[in-house]
Amino acid sequence: MTAFTWQDQTYMQLALDLARQGRFTATPNPIVGCVLVKDDKIVGKGFHFRAGEPHAEVMAMRDAGENAEGATAYVTLEPCSHYGRTPPCAQGLIQAGVAKVIAAMQDPNPQVAGKGLQMLRDAGIESAVGLLEEKAESINRGFLKRMRTGKPFVQLKLAMSLDGRTAMANGESKWITGEIARADVQEGRAQASAILSTAETVLADNPQLNVRWEQLPQEVQAEYSPADLRQPVRVIIDRRHRVQPHHRLFQIESPVWLVSENARDMSAFPTFCEHIRLKTTENSPALLALMQELGRRQINTLWVEAGATLAGALIEQNLADELIIYIAPKLLGDQARGLCRLPHVTRLADAPQWTLQSAVKIGEDLKTVYTRKSV
Amino acid sequence: MTAFTWQDQTYMQLALDLARQGRFTATPNPIVGCVLVKDDKIVGKGFHFRAGEPHAEVMAMRDAGENAEGATAYVTLEPCSHYGRTPPCAQGLIQAGVAKVIAAMQDPNPQVAGKGLQMLRDAGIESAVGLLEEKAESINRGFLKRMRTGKPFVQLKLAMSLDGRTAMANGESKWITGEIARADVQEGRAQASAILSTAETVLADNPQLNVRWEQLPQEVQAEYSPADLRQPVRVIIDRRHRVQPHHRLFQIESPVWLVSENARDMSAFPTFCEHIRLKTTENSPALLALMQELGRRQINTLWVEAGATLAGALIEQNLADELIIYIAPKLLGDQARGLCRLPHVTRLADAPQWTLQSAVKIGEDLKTVYTRKSV
Repeated sequence: MTAFTWQDQTYMQLALDLARQGRFTATPNPIVGCVLVKDDKIVGKGFHFRAGEPHAEVMAMRDAGENAEGATAYVTLEPCSHYGRTPPCAQGLIQAGVAKVIAAMQDPNPQVAGKGLQMLRDAGIESAVGLLEEKAESINRGFLKRMRTGKPFVQLKLAMSLDGRTAMANGESKWITGEIARADVQEGRAQASAILSTAETVLADNPQLNVRWEQLPQEVQAEYSPADLRQPVRVIIDRRHRVQPHHRLFQIESPVWLVSENARDMSAFPTFCEHIRLKTTENSPALLALMQELGRRQINTLWVEAGATLAGALIEQNLADELIIYIAPKLLGDQARGLCRLPHVTRLADAPQWTLQSAVKIGEDLKTVYTRKSV
Repeated sequence: MTAFTWQDQTYMQLALDLARQGRFTATPNPIVGCVLVKDDKIVGKGFHFRAGEPHAEVMAMRDAGENAEGATAYVTLEPCSHYGRTPPCAQGLIQAGVAKVIAAMQDPNPQVAGKGLQMLRDAGIESAVGLLEEKAESINRGFLKRMRTGKPFVQLKLAMSLDGRTAMANGESKWITGEIARADVQEGRAQASAILSTAETVLADNPQLNVRWEQLPQEVQAEYSPADLRQPVRVIIDRRHRVQPHHRLFQIESPVWLVSENARDMSAFPTFCEHIRLKTTENSPALLALMQELGRRQINTLWVEAGATLAGALIEQNLADELIIYIAPKLLGDQARGLCRLPHVTRLADAPQWTLQSAVKIGEDLKTVYTRKSV
């Protein structure tokens, strides 16, 4: 392995921070940041903002101008080697006369997968890989999972009382968590490629399931212009075709994919709606097939807001990668509705295990994040 | 108000830290620390270890010897003015020729309540009160609540899965949380004056409900010798006289108080057992009367380990001051047993509200602490 200096680390960290500026908009592409350094000075910075627009390396080279020649490029993902909507970045770095390229990690995209770094080496440019690799992994979990498995990274968002309840026995549930937690949910939605819900939720709450810019946290608003606002695709499992054009979902002009097993006449729905024909039971092959279909449709991260049945099915079938649980400081009692239905868990030894990643106070609520326990 | 310097704050903080060394043993007394400072040098330190043994001020004066004369005493609670098992500390400070006394807070004990400070002033000793008062309040919540209300400070310890469940539907519940969380529970018990549980818990789990020194966290073991180990009184609500001498509770030779409404023949029980005759339904007058009785019996802090029924009743009746909830990173599903029974909470607006004080990872579990929301 190449030895990296602390200066290398500092520059790569900056590239990672830059990458994050694309986190609301870059999907289905990965987020990428690039820093060009010459004589211990930063001469160019760039990040990838939106698919079809220039990659991070190109933005950094534009920023550097002639100073790119002889510079070291720090890039959070291996430069691409293929012609997509833009020409290969590895080629661009060669043409600009960059002296050295350090990538945080290799791109698992089969169209790249080491070929970008090879292209650089073939051109006599020194290259190294593996600096702050874990951090680079963590900022692109969705893209990387899709490249490696064909399925999106699934985030299950749940909101509950301190005793794990989502609603009173009669269904009353409005505003369990506070305003700051709800703004955080908006940020979560905004970073997702798609939001998954069910007809049951649409019929019960009639949500729009969109990102509302004015409800995003202030620090997000500061870096994300309303003109750039991207709406995640809304995916609704609607087995019995109960979702109808009058539902508030369709007030937002942005893709809605209705999923059901039987053919469906979509003529009454707006043109931004689409029907996905797939089995839609909660059993394992059906939900797995949905995830694979969403992967094929380039969904990197899937943000799930649904009831106890779908939540439980995703958990039992190991399809949820992350739980994001907002815990309100209230007690609803043991007659209130539960968080997730796990019909196959009858012994303690079968209980799905998770790993606590973080617990932070958010307003009056507690936000906890868990990832699936690797066995 | 007197203006305090940062030096004053530093010395008082030290006195507070000293006080904490008595937290396992001082009950029913408050924990108190004292620092004597002369010419900007610490000349004496002391804390109150155990009822009947010298108070913090006496320990500090002994430590200082002749240097006490002319020193400033920093004490976390107003020096006492009455003859209890030891002579009044205010008198002792006067005799030692202390020049000035700074107390973090007044002692609400009606036998003191400002009289200690007055005694000092009458002797011409400068005195001030109110330095780091909030911290001084927080280290003696039990004693202070009992002095002010006649009732103990009630800590409700709960352990649950991520979805708020305490056991499988069939009752299986062993080891929901991990070893480090269980050591933390031992520390919680060790600081309590008494542990409250029910016959239901005794019959289901047959616990000893004692403090096991060897299971205390290592840092506690380092400051708490096994020879000094104090066992909290075990209080068991046993309405139908189902707790019997063969239960494991009685393997520990330390007080057990069995509470029930009807007269009970205790002759088969060990002599360290006592019967408290009180109504024992879960309704409000009965539980309130129990708290008042425990207050009369000098229980400062009551650590509750019980099932969903008693937990819910204490919560609904506003008798629980603090919730300590250990959350295991597991999901048990909505058929598993709930955390607390709240039969009177049927509308969201009636849900008891709490305030999150802390959330920390403890082993693989999450420990959260909530206090009752002040309205």
